[in-house]
Amino acid sequence: MEQRISLTTLGVRDIAASASFYEALGWRRAETPEGIVAFDLIGQTLALYPLDRLAEDIGLAPSTLGTGAVTLAYNCRERDEVAEVLNAASAAGGEILRPASDVFWGGHVGYFRTPDGHIWEVTHNPLAPLSPEGAFRWNGYG
Amino acid sequence: MEQRISLTTLGVRDIAASASFYEALGWRRAETPEGIVAFDLIGQTLALYPLDRLAEDIGLAPSTLGTGAVTLAYNCRERDEVAEVLNAASAAGGEILRPASDVFWGGHVGYFRTPDGHIWEVTHNPLAPLSPEGAFRWNGYG
Repeated sequence: MEQRISLTTLGVRDIAASASFYEALGWRRAETPEGIVAFDLIGQTLALYPLDRLAEDIGLAPSTLGTGAVTLAYNCRERDEVAEVLNAASAAGGEILRPASDVFWGGHVGYFRTPDGHIWEVTHNPLAPLSPEGAFRWNGYG
Repeated sequence: MEQRISLTTLGVRDIAASASFYEALGWRRAETPEGIVAFDLIGQTLALYPLDRLAEDIGLAPSTLGTGAVTLAYNCRERDEVAEVLNAASAAGGEILRPASDVFWGGHVGYFRTPDGHIWEVTHNPLAPLSPEGAFRWNGYG
């Protein structure tokens, strides 16, 4: 198994509402069939899919699927961008769980929850600069 | 907000056991401080982090965090690879939730659950060929 993720799929209760949240943040959808929403990222894709259909595809009851023990992190190029992204998420209908603040390892971090319950971390990590196109790796692009 | 995810973090109860699962699949860890495990992917990173510490960082009770309404998909280059990857996941201690089988849109799909409860989809999608390095986008490369 090669070291990659192709698609991260978020099971959501109201796919139109969830799609609107990301579109309000300026993201553009890929062309997809009815009933699924996809946003192409760097080397992978984020998909939105109805929670009950996701559960059916996997073969589990929807009530056994939770949200939140996965966080999706958006790393910023500059420290002040963290608060800006949190503000944009709030304006788009997200809930700020933790405002931008410094953390022990030298970063600047906040969290927001999307209207469908998924949790995003917004971070500036001065130890791991992004690539020019915005790609991330653990020990940074130099 | 640019269109990307930097880090996908899985909150897990036993980080050593979770790390062993991915290492048994052949993945190599990035150099990290004690207490966190990271696997660099294509343009982003998958991290493992203790569930209680993740909850504390976000400011939520660990009991409010579930798993499973996010799936991580691994797309294969060939149809027969789907069963091979599911077999590797099973050998590494994963639970097969759905064996490899054809789906209505022309793909070949299975699901497994990792020992820490996170759900992976394994897919061959003939409509969306991968890039030579294995990157995915919704309508394919090439």
